[in-house]
Amino acid sequence: MSNICHFNEALEKTAANHVPLSPLSFIRRTAAVYPDRTALVYNDLRYSWQQTYARCCQLASLLTHLGIQKGDTVAVMLPNVPAMYEAHFGIPMVGAVLNGINIRLDPETVAFILEHSRSRLLLVDPEYVDVVEKALAQLEGPAPQVINVSDPSQGEERWIGGLEYEALLTDQPAWKEWQLPADEWDAIALGYTSGTTGNPKGVVSHHRGAYLNAVSNALSWTLPANVTYLWTLPMFHCNGWCFPWTLAAIGGTSVCLRRVDPEHILALIKEQGVTHYCGAPIVHTMIADAATARSELIGHTIYGLVAGAAPPASVFERMEKIGIELTHVYGLTETYGPASVCTKQTEWAQCSLEERVQLNGRQGVAYPLQEEMAVLDAETMAPVPADGKTIGEIMFRGNIVMKGYLRNEAATREAFAGGWFHSGDLAVIEPDGYVKIRDRLKDVIISGGENISSLEVEDIVQRHPDVEFVAVVAMTDDKWGEVPAAFVQLRPGSELSEDALIRFCRERISHYKAPKKFVFGALPTTATGKIQKFQLRQQVNGD
Amino acid sequence: MSNICHFNEALEKTAANHVPLSPLSFIRRTAAVYPDRTALVYNDLRYSWQQTYARCCQLASLLTHLGIQKGDTVAVMLPNVPAMYEAHFGIPMVGAVLNGINIRLDPETVAFILEHSRSRLLLVDPEYVDVVEKALAQLEGPAPQVINVSDPSQGEERWIGGLEYEALLTDQPAWKEWQLPADEWDAIALGYTSGTTGNPKGVVSHHRGAYLNAVSNALSWTLPANVTYLWTLPMFHCNGWCFPWTLAAIGGTSVCLRRVDPEHILALIKEQGVTHYCGAPIVHTMIADAATARSELIGHTIYGLVAGAAPPASVFERMEKIGIELTHVYGLTETYGPASVCTKQTEWAQCSLEERVQLNGRQGVAYPLQEEMAVLDAETMAPVPADGKTIGEIMFRGNIVMKGYLRNEAATREAFAGGWFHSGDLAVIEPDGYVKIRDRLKDVIISGGENISSLEVEDIVQRHPDVEFVAVVAMTDDKWGEVPAAFVQLRPGSELSEDALIRFCRERISHYKAPKKFVFGALPTTATGKIQKFQLRQQVNGD
Repeated sequence: MSNICHFNEALEKTAANHVPLSPLSFIRRTAAVYPDRTALVYNDLRYSWQQTYARCCQLASLLTHLGIQKGDTVAVMLPNVPAMYEAHFGIPMVGAVLNGINIRLDPETVAFILEHSRSRLLLVDPEYVDVVEKALAQLEGPAPQVINVSDPSQGEERWIGGLEYEALLTDQPAWKEWQLPADEWDAIALGYTSGTTGNPKGVVSHHRGAYLNAVSNALSWTLPANVTYLWTLPMFHCNGWCFPWTLAAIGGTSVCLRRVDPEHILALIKEQGVTHYCGAPIVHTMIADAATARSELIGHTIYGLVAGAAPPASVFERMEKIGIELTHVYGLTETYGPASVCTKQTEWAQCSLEERVQLNGRQGVAYPLQEEMAVLDAETMAPVPADGKTIGEIMFRGNIVMKGYLRNEAATREAFAGGWFHSGDLAVIEPDGYVKIRDRLKDVIISGGENISSLEVEDIVQRHPDVEFVAVVAMTDDKWGEVPAAFVQLRPGSELSEDALIRFCRERISHYKAPKKFVFGALPTTATGKIQKFQLRQQVNGD
Repeated sequence: MSNICHFNEALEKTAANHVPLSPLSFIRRTAAVYPDRTALVYNDLRYSWQQTYARCCQLASLLTHLGIQKGDTVAVMLPNVPAMYEAHFGIPMVGAVLNGINIRLDPETVAFILEHSRSRLLLVDPEYVDVVEKALAQLEGPAPQVINVSDPSQGEERWIGGLEYEALLTDQPAWKEWQLPADEWDAIALGYTSGTTGNPKGVVSHHRGAYLNAVSNALSWTLPANVTYLWTLPMFHCNGWCFPWTLAAIGGTSVCLRRVDPEHILALIKEQGVTHYCGAPIVHTMIADAATARSELIGHTIYGLVAGAAPPASVFERMEKIGIELTHVYGLTETYGPASVCTKQTEWAQCSLEERVQLNGRQGVAYPLQEEMAVLDAETMAPVPADGKTIGEIMFRGNIVMKGYLRNEAATREAFAGGWFHSGDLAVIEPDGYVKIRDRLKDVIISGGENISSLEVEDIVQRHPDVEFVAVVAMTDDKWGEVPAAFVQLRPGSELSEDALIRFCRERISHYKAPKKFVFGALPTTATGKIQKFQLRQQVNGD
């Protein structure tokens, strides 16, 4: 008899020793361990964990009552209000799939998403009723049932139809007999990526990945149970990077937030004792600016996660003075939010501010429970050397990678070619093993046969103290093919000239990499604070 | 077309998005993220994570060279030295199963374990050569190959045969092409429980559970990357509660320790800046006693996990003064070590010392990633009410429960009856939902038809300041059937009489629960510091 066999002999999975991994387990446990601790805060509203769990169970009961079944899609178009948090639990409790729609999308895209996702129900905030009405009017198939999530703090509201979330919820029992998914590979959420060309793709995530990344957030940030987390990051964005589930895993408090208003944020930080928050660089800059304008310190340390370009040294320095400790993360909807983190090494504390900004502003290393992050030559799939120079594509492999794109086999196959998820971002590996992004594949500028990283050029422009935001894109050029063009948003009151900025750049970067053209003005951003480079390319190239 | 189907349509598992959960992933990641940070300290030896990972890969290479294959068992009989840590990675790297043998077992039991586990190789510390030689002499089947793990710090050594670990390792390349298990349900370790009757049972654990409990330890204790963990808990005991893998997950430092010597421990705490350790109550008491005798404070906070009976209030108080913060956990080999934790609630800080000792000394709530802990009526499988009175059996259900007992289908079936793992421990649920052990099933004393919890009686006796340790067992009695008998180890110098102790008990507990007989002297303990009640029962009942 083989030895392999005796370790598998009559040792099958049973109900006692195998349970599907699902973040739904977290809220059940936390409601039992911390029943009276505050789970959700929104304006004057406070819900304990016991109440929040009961409300999620009521939502599950309501969905069942409305005929929602396993495998159905339930769409939500909500800001970061309690109903949005509850949707992350109540919807999967009935085996349905949560489709969080970006609240800033246009009616055409919303219509596409509702149709493609086959959403049977839509929870909507009255603030977005105009867009949703137009979207519904464009649908070819059957329209989803609409439930309005009323917010008394917002004054007069217009609804679509007569169903209202709170009223419907109140009538439901807290249905605690909900079941975990039959399989941890079952879908939990669907998130459409804001593709720059073609239709958005529906990223399908599963319970196993959501469970593991929720835990990975807690490990990476060493989160204790008593954190107070401010919802500056939209929950419709990769399910708030899995943080609704992370907070349920540890029993932390969520401070809900309808919109990113720096003054309101500073007030909440003080009143609620906020300890943690996440956001795009612009969110952090706004907070730093507002705090500096008030010339007030916060009085306790706050931990922030930032995804995207490193904030300039001046912002970084101000944030340190205010008492905000930033950590860089990187990821995509396809990786449930953060998939890498710029883990701080002890010895960095000895470095100069300028050095620390550079060290901390990288994409870093694989997230704790992400299996592998690599920078590979997309042709040969060979790893690039850790020389800080050779460019490859960032790729991930592991349990925190989507199931694939919904009804888009070709895109799924392409994304997973060679057994790795292709991020589409170009990067180098620095000698310490940390990954540093150089560019989006499509944002590389090819000038006279040389590749220029738009991020590298932005990094230089951004160092000028008068520059608030910058975006560099390729501008077609008769001689060189492409040259860099820079869109610059100056700090209020600055009168910096194009000439002065060109000189500033040429002193710091190779001539051919310095922008040939500067456009001054406000920069267009996406719903998640990302600068929309495709618009800038159109603007500068007139196409 | 059904909706369920579109979420599973062409969205299968691929190499990009599915990887078996295994704690082996942790050491690969940590060696890359913290290559130069210290992983292991032993006397004057220091190994960085890069070195430790390389050594584990060398061990994997050595095992392959010796013909060890997937599904083979490799036994180790080692104290907490670096080789024992390396065994937790190098052995599973080749798909083999780690069988950690209790270093205090007798030759007969060691022979049984080697035979039953079909161990093909044995790593042994020269300190245990006498026992192992006798065990090998008793084997009926083929003997495992023996590798001696020499320890130059221990002076002259006697070996079995001529193979030596360090010498063999040096010749091997660091084989980084090892593979994760094909299936996360594959066995990673085998641990024999010290059954009081019959042969020990071989608990088979799997990669998935080891991964999840390693993470659960980090979550439960909010472990940051810079912990320095002292190995007071034997690694042969449920794989050191999964802490070898936890430390690899976070990148913490292990301070190895051959034996529990309080003076040496205090020195290491200061020299190495130890921040965390685990152990049976006796370990904590020894440390508190030694620190008190020295009347020195430690100078930084140390966090300890304790499993077993709550230390008496006086010890608890001393530990607080010294700067040690204790947390209670509870579990079994079958649950990979800790499966529940007495999570501290914020409001407990306001309670009196006496109250805090009671609150903190409970078995508590399910461990973060353990699915469920319950106290059920073993007959009906109905949960007991949270009244602090109704006794039921502690049961667990989830991914951190063993595969089962090796080649013991009947015992496995019995352990998992009704879809729950039966712990064999009796407990109540207190009104706050926390579980409190009342007794082992077999340790209940049935006196005149009344059930007496031996732990409840011990708790009373232990309150006497002169009592160092106590164990209460059933003594047969012609009139009552059984009565409680107490074995007491007094603190050095005490001259407490039996009469005085009987009076002390009767003032605090119902007459029928007070011990009818006291035996003074040192208490026999198992290798892991548990008091061996079956020996005491034999002694007092003469059977």
